[in-house]
Amino acid sequence: MAGEFELIARHFTRPGRRARAAVGLGVGDDCALLSPAPGQQLAVSSDMLVEGRHFLSTVAPERLGHKALAVNLSDLAACGAEPLAFTLALALPRGDDVFAAALARGLFALADAHGIELVGGDTTAGPLNLCLTVIGQVPPGQALLRSGARAGDRLWVSGRLGDARLALEVFRGTVELAGGDFDTVRRAMEQPEPRVALGLALRGLATSAIDLSDGLVGDLGHVLARSGVGTTVEVDALPRSAIVAAQPRELQHRCVLAGGDDYELLFTAPAGQDEAVRAAGERAGVAVTPIGRIEAAAGLRLVDADGQPVSFNERAFDHFI
Amino acid sequence: MAGEFELIARHFTRPGRRARAAVGLGVGDDCALLSPAPGQQLAVSSDMLVEGRHFLSTVAPERLGHKALAVNLSDLAACGAEPLAFTLALALPRGDDVFAAALARGLFALADAHGIELVGGDTTAGPLNLCLTVIGQVPPGQALLRSGARAGDRLWVSGRLGDARLALEVFRGTVELAGGDFDTVRRAMEQPEPRVALGLALRGLATSAIDLSDGLVGDLGHVLARSGVGTTVEVDALPRSAIVAAQPRELQHRCVLAGGDDYELLFTAPAGQDEAVRAAGERAGVAVTPIGRIEAAAGLRLVDADGQPVSFNERAFDHFI
Repeated sequence: MAGEFELIARHFTRPGRRARAAVGLGVGDDCALLSPAPGQQLAVSSDMLVEGRHFLSTVAPERLGHKALAVNLSDLAACGAEPLAFTLALALPRGDDVFAAALARGLFALADAHGIELVGGDTTAGPLNLCLTVIGQVPPGQALLRSGARAGDRLWVSGRLGDARLALEVFRGTVELAGGDFDTVRRAMEQPEPRVALGLALRGLATSAIDLSDGLVGDLGHVLARSGVGTTVEVDALPRSAIVAAQPRELQHRCVLAGGDDYELLFTAPAGQDEAVRAAGERAGVAVTPIGRIEAAAGLRLVDADGQPVSFNERAFDHFI
Repeated sequence: MAGEFELIARHFTRPGRRARAAVGLGVGDDCALLSPAPGQQLAVSSDMLVEGRHFLSTVAPERLGHKALAVNLSDLAACGAEPLAFTLALALPRGDDVFAAALARGLFALADAHGIELVGGDTTAGPLNLCLTVIGQVPPGQALLRSGARAGDRLWVSGRLGDARLALEVFRGTVELAGGDFDTVRRAMEQPEPRVALGLALRGLATSAIDLSDGLVGDLGHVLARSGVGTTVEVDALPRSAIVAAQPRELQHRCVLAGGDDYELLFTAPAGQDEAVRAAGERAGVAVTPIGRIEAAAGLRLVDADGQPVSFNERAFDHFI
């Protein structure tokens, strides 16, 4: 057991660390002071992770530290912003030194991979809760928004969908997987990779973007509504792992359409830019798959490989349902 | 009962509201986009409020909304930063419409009083928890830090100390107060006024500052340690309300020295600047009281009006003790 100030000092203070020129003063004063590059816009996003809702009590604290930062970086990626710094507010049931140390390890490993630093925050007792705020920068007018999709654009998604949802179904006891497969999908759920490099590569290329946190159907719905457009998506063409593809068709649909926790980027780009989009994916080290075309007629239409309608009624993941 | 997206749309989205020129894009995309004034540094702070720890379940949600923003603005005040915008991440046990509406009312009333806007955030189910991040701006080199106190400086505090702690003692059942007095100290606990105007008025004048959230002894200790100095404080000269002053001396000491939740500014300024400091307090509409001198000898010495040592062993409020 350790006091609040000791926990901060021991695990979340890294003297002398400075993330880029942007950070003037980090943990330990009333505020962090940042100096973004001149003329840049700031991109800011906050996400809160609650035990039993965004992660299970069985998650290793190191992976939890990774995931808490990853889901926030994913929001920056969806805006095409370059990460600068983050704050962490943490409620812990106890002053648990071992837990805090492992959490900090996972958090800082991902922070180091993106060259960013923890600049401030808060530690308190309470039901386990992590709230992070990430701050990034983007040249004015270049942020990727949800509202920019236009009829004729190609609709793309990065990576593969549904592994995290499949892992959740195993935890729920509705699906059984062999040990190695379970480890793979569990890692997708517990240690998602934010697509920061892809978001940066899509600046000036994508017309809209969102990150997939609540499932494809729900998140795509936000883009369509904001942009005032519609689309037809071929469900069987959605990218998925061999593990998901080995499941019954209905479960596959649930995983790829309403998965949640995918943290892939869903984005649109002019149809003439297919090669540039593929090149951006290659530079970022992640597959990008075309999954449909944006149409003027509002609404989301799901079809199979024969163009026949696929019915799917599961709502977007909603934390109060 | 309402779903997550409905709650956000209904209570926390105010279309067309723009807080100053700084805010480009608010709630509803993956990130908020901000454009601070050219050449300014950003000041960022996050605070998390947990039920039973930072507020009691008996607090009116409107006051809770106020307090959650107030304690964050208090951190900006302590840095002399001008508030620009804030994010809110909110965990609610249920999708409680009435609670969320009242919380939003209290939050936005204070936001409007400071001309700032909610630019993003997150709503989820979970044990009641509010995590806010405030963003402000300050000209480079003008932020008030904890580390700037110098021997010979005068030590000052704004407002009055101890009302919030006295209210807590009433809730705990260790003290009884007449109804009107209880209402007064309860309001101090539940609706603190962040000293933003005073923080701005102290730019270029104060040599160090901190806001009092964990009690004078603990918070002053941070300033002394960071600045490598010490001080002698005359306990009986610490400003307090008539309600606190009517309590037994030992309880008074507990309230003014280890109160917590005061959200007043503790700051130092060169002794020759007494008149300028008083004028800054007048411009900001809050009393400022000199409570000691900074000394080269490290440590905090508490004395009575006769200069005799006052012993006081209660530790700074620590959330894990």
